[in-house]
Amino acid sequence: MSKPIHFYFDFSSPYGYLASERIEDIAVRCGCELVWHPILLGAVFQVTGQAPLTEAPLKGAYAVHDFSRAAREYQISYSHPDPFPIGSVTASRAVLWLRDRDGSDSVETGRLIHALYRAYFSEGQDITDNTVVASVAESVGIDAEAMIQAVSSDPVKQALRQEVQQAIERGVFGSPMMIVDNEPFWGHDRLEQMERWIKAGGW
Amino acid sequence: MSKPIHFYFDFSSPYGYLASERIEDIAVRCGCELVWHPILLGAVFQVTGQAPLTEAPLKGAYAVHDFSRAAREYQISYSHPDPFPIGSVTASRAVLWLRDRDGSDSVETGRLIHALYRAYFSEGQDITDNTVVASVAESVGIDAEAMIQAVSSDPVKQALRQEVQQAIERGVFGSPMMIVDNEPFWGHDRLEQMERWIKAGGW
Repeated sequence: MSKPIHFYFDFSSPYGYLASERIEDIAVRCGCELVWHPILLGAVFQVTGQAPLTEAPLKGAYAVHDFSRAAREYQISYSHPDPFPIGSVTASRAVLWLRDRDGSDSVETGRLIHALYRAYFSEGQDITDNTVVASVAESVGIDAEAMIQAVSSDPVKQALRQEVQQAIERGVFGSPMMIVDNEPFWGHDRLEQMERWIKAGGW
Repeated sequence: MSKPIHFYFDFSSPYGYLASERIEDIAVRCGCELVWHPILLGAVFQVTGQAPLTEAPLKGAYAVHDFSRAAREYQISYSHPDPFPIGSVTASRAVLWLRDRDGSDSVETGRLIHALYRAYFSEGQDITDNTVVASVAESVGIDAEAMIQAVSSDPVKQALRQEVQQAIERGVFGSPMMIVDNEPFWGHDRLEQMERWIKAGGW
């Protein structure tokens, strides 16, 4: 097994969603373990001084066009949500609670992430709402009641703060961002390059 | 012959340089004519409110690392220049003068663009300097004296202002940016997607 792929993403990030739908196959092809890292771009942007992509003149309109075009190319269901962007604190905490409960990422972690991302970017559900997050978790067989209690508990809040802080310390400034053996790759459109890099052992 | 590929680039843009080294082969493979559009990102950024990529915290350090990594992958000679970024007015005007002289892009246009880009990003030459631009032009067989006179003439100044204005009107916000049949593709890392798009006739 090669070094793990660390996959950083924000639940409000379209390119994060698109990459989340492809990263597991890539990890399998590369023989890498996959480690999911939900982060909050809002906190990251306070460090980098960036603004949400879609708010930039010209670039924003291109981005919205590009989200759907990229989704069509990879046959991923995508419907640009409204409202957008949203706060992804609850969804992110839910993922970290699951990891802490199980000691590490499991098949369930991936299932929960996919279900939450699809709820927002394909079904237009409001995943800032605790009851929506609970119902999504239930749909993939997770104990929703335990989860909802946990997401407002101090240890889980602290886990997310720590996750975001560690991401910034590792140089993460966007979503998705992949780090393999200290080598960072930024963007859905770098998945191919990352795969070539891993298979070639770098260059 | 399919629709032309409009290739927008700034002479101070590392990703523009990398893409310029690959775009002609792609145009040939796609059976497309290639139209070069030198632009000034500084003027574009006044509209979009962006700042140069390398000045952004975290993102800037990643970008500098990524320029060389991408260059190595495609075996393009790259040495991150100092000073960086630079004003690309003179170099851009030289290209537009050549186009206006010949009535359209020619083989010489491509040669001049490559020679200027390589002078800056591979040989560390200061292409803001008229005498450097003249000597680069001469090295590819262009009448440097006529060019240097032209780059400070009103028609050529006006041609560049118009080129930049038209680019902004077409939604260009970065370098490189390719537009094919009104479909925009932003970034060196989208060349593969653009090629797939052209060959597939869109999706």
